[in-house]
Amino acid sequence: MPDSLNNLLTALKPQFADRLLTSDAAREHHGSGESHLTPAWPDAIVMVQSTEEVSDVLAACTCYGVPVIPFGAGSSIEGQIHAPHGGISLDMSAMHAILSVQDTDMDCTVQCGVTRQALNEHLRVTGLFFPVELGAHATLGGIAATRASGTTTVRYGSMRDLVLGMTIVMPDGEIIKTGGRARKSSAGYDLTRLFIGSEGTLGVITELNLRLFGVPEATQTAMCSFATIEDATQTVVMALQCGLSLNRIELADRLQMQAINRYSKTDLPESPTLWVELTGAPATVENDMEVFEGLAETASRFDRATTAEDASRLWRVRHDALYASRALRPGIKGISTDVCVPISQLPAIISEIQDVIATTSIQAPLVGHVGDGNFHLVLLYDPENQDEAQEARHINTQLVEMALKMGGTCTGEHGVGLGKKAYLTAEHGPALGVMRRIRNALDPDNIMNPGKIFDL
Amino acid sequence: MPDSLNNLLTALKPQFADRLLTSDAAREHHGSGESHLTPAWPDAIVMVQSTEEVSDVLAACTCYGVPVIPFGAGSSIEGQIHAPHGGISLDMSAMHAILSVQDTDMDCTVQCGVTRQALNEHLRVTGLFFPVELGAHATLGGIAATRASGTTTVRYGSMRDLVLGMTIVMPDGEIIKTGGRARKSSAGYDLTRLFIGSEGTLGVITELNLRLFGVPEATQTAMCSFATIEDATQTVVMALQCGLSLNRIELADRLQMQAINRYSKTDLPESPTLWVELTGAPATVENDMEVFEGLAETASRFDRATTAEDASRLWRVRHDALYASRALRPGIKGISTDVCVPISQLPAIISEIQDVIATTSIQAPLVGHVGDGNFHLVLLYDPENQDEAQEARHINTQLVEMALKMGGTCTGEHGVGLGKKAYLTAEHGPALGVMRRIRNALDPDNIMNPGKIFDL
Repeated sequence: MPDSLNNLLTALKPQFADRLLTSDAAREHHGSGESHLTPAWPDAIVMVQSTEEVSDVLAACTCYGVPVIPFGAGSSIEGQIHAPHGGISLDMSAMHAILSVQDTDMDCTVQCGVTRQALNEHLRVTGLFFPVELGAHATLGGIAATRASGTTTVRYGSMRDLVLGMTIVMPDGEIIKTGGRARKSSAGYDLTRLFIGSEGTLGVITELNLRLFGVPEATQTAMCSFATIEDATQTVVMALQCGLSLNRIELADRLQMQAINRYSKTDLPESPTLWVELTGAPATVENDMEVFEGLAETASRFDRATTAEDASRLWRVRHDALYASRALRPGIKGISTDVCVPISQLPAIISEIQDVIATTSIQAPLVGHVGDGNFHLVLLYDPENQDEAQEARHINTQLVEMALKMGGTCTGEHGVGLGKKAYLTAEHGPALGVMRRIRNALDPDNIMNPGKIFDL
Repeated sequence: MPDSLNNLLTALKPQFADRLLTSDAAREHHGSGESHLTPAWPDAIVMVQSTEEVSDVLAACTCYGVPVIPFGAGSSIEGQIHAPHGGISLDMSAMHAILSVQDTDMDCTVQCGVTRQALNEHLRVTGLFFPVELGAHATLGGIAATRASGTTTVRYGSMRDLVLGMTIVMPDGEIIKTGGRARKSSAGYDLTRLFIGSEGTLGVITELNLRLFGVPEATQTAMCSFATIEDATQTVVMALQCGLSLNRIELADRLQMQAINRYSKTDLPESPTLWVELTGAPATVENDMEVFEGLAETASRFDRATTAEDASRLWRVRHDALYASRALRPGIKGISTDVCVPISQLPAIISEIQDVIATTSIQAPLVGHVGDGNFHLVLLYDPENQDEAQEARHINTQLVEMALKMGGTCTGEHGVGLGKKAYLTAEHGPALGVMRRIRNALDPDNIMNPGKIFDL
């Protein structure tokens, strides 16, 4: 253990006592997360309970030149919580207080360690809810740091759009507030948006002011099957242009549907499928679902849920899609791709990548947030098998290259971490140099999650 | 004329010839705009026609250490286009090409000098439109640089939410692209949002990818009067919580209604008034207007437009509100305040500031984008009269202090420029130091619109 780390731990011990962990079990838990990447353990973990404690730890880490890696629920999948240069994992899961809810203003203030599930549970009596909905059991601080989004982006926008302001601790321990509680502001640089998606490389998000929304009165759900991905996409494009009250609109491909039938013991058509959910006033969703059914004229089958149980049954198979995929090759975790392209390019990119996949031995079922042009292939490969690993990497790289050519991005919602670093030069060109200058200016000692997003 | 400027002009002359202007008429036009502030002329104007020309001018300005002030339509009202340190006004009004419209993806790419009116004119045949709607005849580059918004923010968000990506020229002439055409991305820092609202202090926006929307099928308009601002606000809060398909919801106070009646020769109730516009499918807006009328139970009068002419008559008086205000004191331009607060605080802040105004000789009619908590008082004062000028400044300062205490902002949509600089320390505290470090890192020679937003 180098002197600097030793001195840091000696300095932190009196304050944090048994909240300073160095056991292998704690280090392993904080150094692998849900990523497919090789784990990289931190040297120690500090369990913080307040913004002031975060400030103390960061000031000490700057003083001793030791890296800090913010940690929420450990659900990131691109290695954001890995510690490739060692250092301190700053565990903020105990910062889970919901500080205030202002129902008239439809906003709330929470600590970073609150999960969206816990927030919505708390909000239930108010008739309000926070709309970001993603598969992971993530913390709101982590969702912001990753600029994550999920299934309801088509209606409410991503985390980027739903944060009004934040409390942030800078690398030297200084505590700043960005934004505020006003719905909009033109007062200077948008630091809120700069820290959203910065993956802990510029500072640590400790509190968030979030927008809330009224729970819609009514919901309409349907599931429909198409002969081709193109027919499904075309239906979505028309629905978007009509401004239908879409809340979620999800796509699965033929292989995914085969996986679902096997896993969920269903008998659904094994062809490209859309799930659609409309929310709003009863008259609106009733009308919009009729319009949608009319737009989906190429659908070979259209199942409209007539009861809440029906709807929940339709969505259950979508929610279980990841498990269904993994069940195609039991014991194999698979890695998830995450490109996002202009929606018109979806049929082309899916067809092109399926041609590439067909030349390999990899199975790769697809689900997508089709209203955003974002989709995930689960590449099922055995990491012990070098040939398969090589094929999976090849598919991933080919896919990103296609997406960038189409004006898209290598990551729609999972972030860069360690896993997508290789693609940022191609995606951003000289703009990456501007990001580098900002990082150097705000974290001159390079202690904040070093090695993530890009190298200095 | 200092040597550095002389040398710069000599260097630019061969390339720009008669597009390099130094006449007093041109300097005056480019150094006053629509601001109430004392004009500050640039030394010269360069009329650029392309991103590459912007790059050439910026590289030359960096080389000779001469300030550059980006100029679009000159509609900014806080002195954003003033040249307090002299230098070059970079006039981009000739960069008004609409480069492409992708109707399937509902996005487009435009040069910075395109106005929103010109874009919407161009889009008419496509059934799509760009939703930012503000009073000024501004360029889209200027709207982005100011992070402006207007009346439709309650539905579509502000300029911040509607830009997918941009081409930006950095102070040394380097051309970068931020964002892209994907609906969302988690690939690194959100440079797009950093440049939106940076008022030309970090670089020059030359092209924008913008989101477009389908023109709604149907519209419902109403105008309703209330005994108090509180009753009006309470109605809006309930409408927001119900998720009604609000497109615009605007407020005027008693004095503004008196001004309107005088100016527009109408006989409207002289009490707090709401204009509401709902857009969407016919069934939706029909239903939502009925719900809204039910929510507005405290309204003393509720006029629902039954024809398009009716609706346009109701909106005309709202559009003419600024002229009606000015007509209260002919020859006096007035300055517009711009605070934005959480909507629950609107009745309190309006009541408190009206108490302050009552102690002065100033008339100050009010209009507001009430769904966002943003409102404008037009402070009618004679700048030649020192007492009045002092009173107007006092009102403005008091108002900002109240807004900040309530978690609001000194500027909802007009930006900082020179006019709001004094309030940024109080609003941002140590976060202003973070903005300063970013600016130093990206514009180390301080040539980009120096003296604006904050001093270095």
